[in-house]
Amino acid sequence: MTATILPLSTQRPPSLDPMMALVAGDMNGVNAVILERMQSKVALIPELAGHLIAGGGKRMRPMLTLACAALLGYPGTRHHKLAAAVEFIHTATLLHDDVVDGSGMRRGKRTANLIWGNPASVLVGDFLFSRAFELMVEDGSLRVLRILSHASAVIAEGEVDQLTAQRRIETDEDHYLEIITAKTAALFAAACRVSPVVAEASEDAEFGLECFGRNLGIAFQLSDDVIDYASDAATMGKGVGDDFRDGKMTLPVILAYARGGEQDRAFWRAAIGGERISDDDLAQAIDLLGETGALADTIEWARQYARRAIDALGMFPASKAKAALTEAAEFAVARAY
Amino acid sequence: MTATILPLSTQRPPSLDPMMALVAGDMNGVNAVILERMQSKVALIPELAGHLIAGGGKRMRPMLTLACAALLGYPGTRHHKLAAAVEFIHTATLLHDDVVDGSGMRRGKRTANLIWGNPASVLVGDFLFSRAFELMVEDGSLRVLRILSHASAVIAEGEVDQLTAQRRIETDEDHYLEIITAKTAALFAAACRVSPVVAEASEDAEFGLECFGRNLGIAFQLSDDVIDYASDAATMGKGVGDDFRDGKMTLPVILAYARGGEQDRAFWRAAIGGERISDDDLAQAIDLLGETGALADTIEWARQYARRAIDALGMFPASKAKAALTEAAEFAVARAY
Repeated sequence: MTATILPLSTQRPPSLDPMMALVAGDMNGVNAVILERMQSKVALIPELAGHLIAGGGKRMRPMLTLACAALLGYPGTRHHKLAAAVEFIHTATLLHDDVVDGSGMRRGKRTANLIWGNPASVLVGDFLFSRAFELMVEDGSLRVLRILSHASAVIAEGEVDQLTAQRRIETDEDHYLEIITAKTAALFAAACRVSPVVAEASEDAEFGLECFGRNLGIAFQLSDDVIDYASDAATMGKGVGDDFRDGKMTLPVILAYARGGEQDRAFWRAAIGGERISDDDLAQAIDLLGETGALADTIEWARQYARRAIDALGMFPASKAKAALTEAAEFAVARAY
Repeated sequence: MTATILPLSTQRPPSLDPMMALVAGDMNGVNAVILERMQSKVALIPELAGHLIAGGGKRMRPMLTLACAALLGYPGTRHHKLAAAVEFIHTATLLHDDVVDGSGMRRGKRTANLIWGNPASVLVGDFLFSRAFELMVEDGSLRVLRILSHASAVIAEGEVDQLTAQRRIETDEDHYLEIITAKTAALFAAACRVSPVVAEASEDAEFGLECFGRNLGIAFQLSDDVIDYASDAATMGKGVGDDFRDGKMTLPVILAYARGGEQDRAFWRAAIGGERISDDDLAQAIDLLGETGALADTIEWARQYARRAIDALGMFPASKAKAALTEAAEFAVARAY
């Protein structure tokens, strides 16, 4: 990594703090909805959902809904329910993801499936997903419902696509981008797009914020993929090398495989195929990712998408909200350093 | 079982044939929607979904939507999409149920989770669920969306409740009725209630058909519970004794446990607790269910609910559709003989 890829716009490292400060008041409203609507007379539901929802997540997606509403000067509170719905959809997919991947750690805590078992995680995920739709129906906007029901279908499609690509070394960059655009960026995009609909802003604003969210989501996913190889468990809150052991084809691996000699390529084929998953194998993988510049270039890709996100804000006049969203996009890249 | 519990209203055994004949034309429309909307560029989705959807199910719930529309003389086709949405919700819950129960057989075929694995079943279920909401949003009725999103949340709640009650011998009749009203009857009720909304029928018609569907759903579930102990794999399409081996508290077991002497109760405690799951244990369970009249009385309960369902149709004038729905309620009981 060289100095040229460091962010130029701020002295201090970019963070989510300005966005958090911007939406703090609204976020209390969203949290109240989340807390109220994850309740059920079936005690296991709030217990399991609460473990994950209260478990130190950033609330990134609802925060984006709120910040986009602030950008548009929306004075109401309709978006609180919708931001909660977005978080419920996200929580449902996390619960199901952890079952699918057999994960044991998330956000530095034991996963729900490890504590309560896969069946409970599947069913509570279904509950939260249904609850999300109930919240949207209560809001009553068919346009919002269209955006979020479509995003949900796209996410599920992307998850199945990723499952199909797992352990397949021949997965290429285009296919990988399709997968993360669906499984990650679609919900970021929808979270941002909801606000201009509620604020009755222009179609331009709607597409602009959709574009911001989509590119931001891709940037976040790319830096996540880097972190999975470069970070340690303490900062990441989940085990390093999870993607490696699961045989997930992410951009760093795709780049390193493309650039490797015959011997390196044989290593990657074996590793992604599930034949080399020891700590030594992971160390070798991290070495190869460094030597080939795959991690640095993945960060460079993330930076490109973050720039596209920032460009999509071009139509909006300067404001605290715009600065906070811009810094969020810079943070999406900087977190992977 | 005595002659007094045989149905009196028909000479031939009650069947779904009249309802199938009634809705055959509309069902072609529903099937076309189902086939079109389960497609995806991710090939595993139509492959896995098709295995279950084309796999010989009765299409009971969409059939009810269509028959209720016929009862109201609704001339349009809006309900085709909604009936497909109902079937997608049902299919999603079946996919997840089979993961939750670790089932290997359904409708006489190997389950999707056995063929493609649990992860694929979870994620394709999520896709179908999202697709169901997309179909409803396309229809555009917020009242329908409210009915079906609420039903979905209630179903998931009921499934978690059932999971909590599993292997707990102290589950009582009231709790059991709550569980099946949620996990099974809610979708029957919603499937029936959708039609009066689309047909712009009276609120009385809406509540009448909701009541019909709910009670019919309970009757179906009760007879399912009997079949799981009384039938053989050939007629049921899944293994006999699945509920027994899974430690599921169903009404037959609740009644037999309540009526048993100390020795019988000790057997049930051990069996439901998971300590007695051999074929001999199952045979003993079936003996006890017979001796205590638990199976016959569960059928008697089913008959009561079927009667309530039929009574809920009282407000509608005689018609082919009414006769078909009435016979469906009789069939719900007769299938367990």
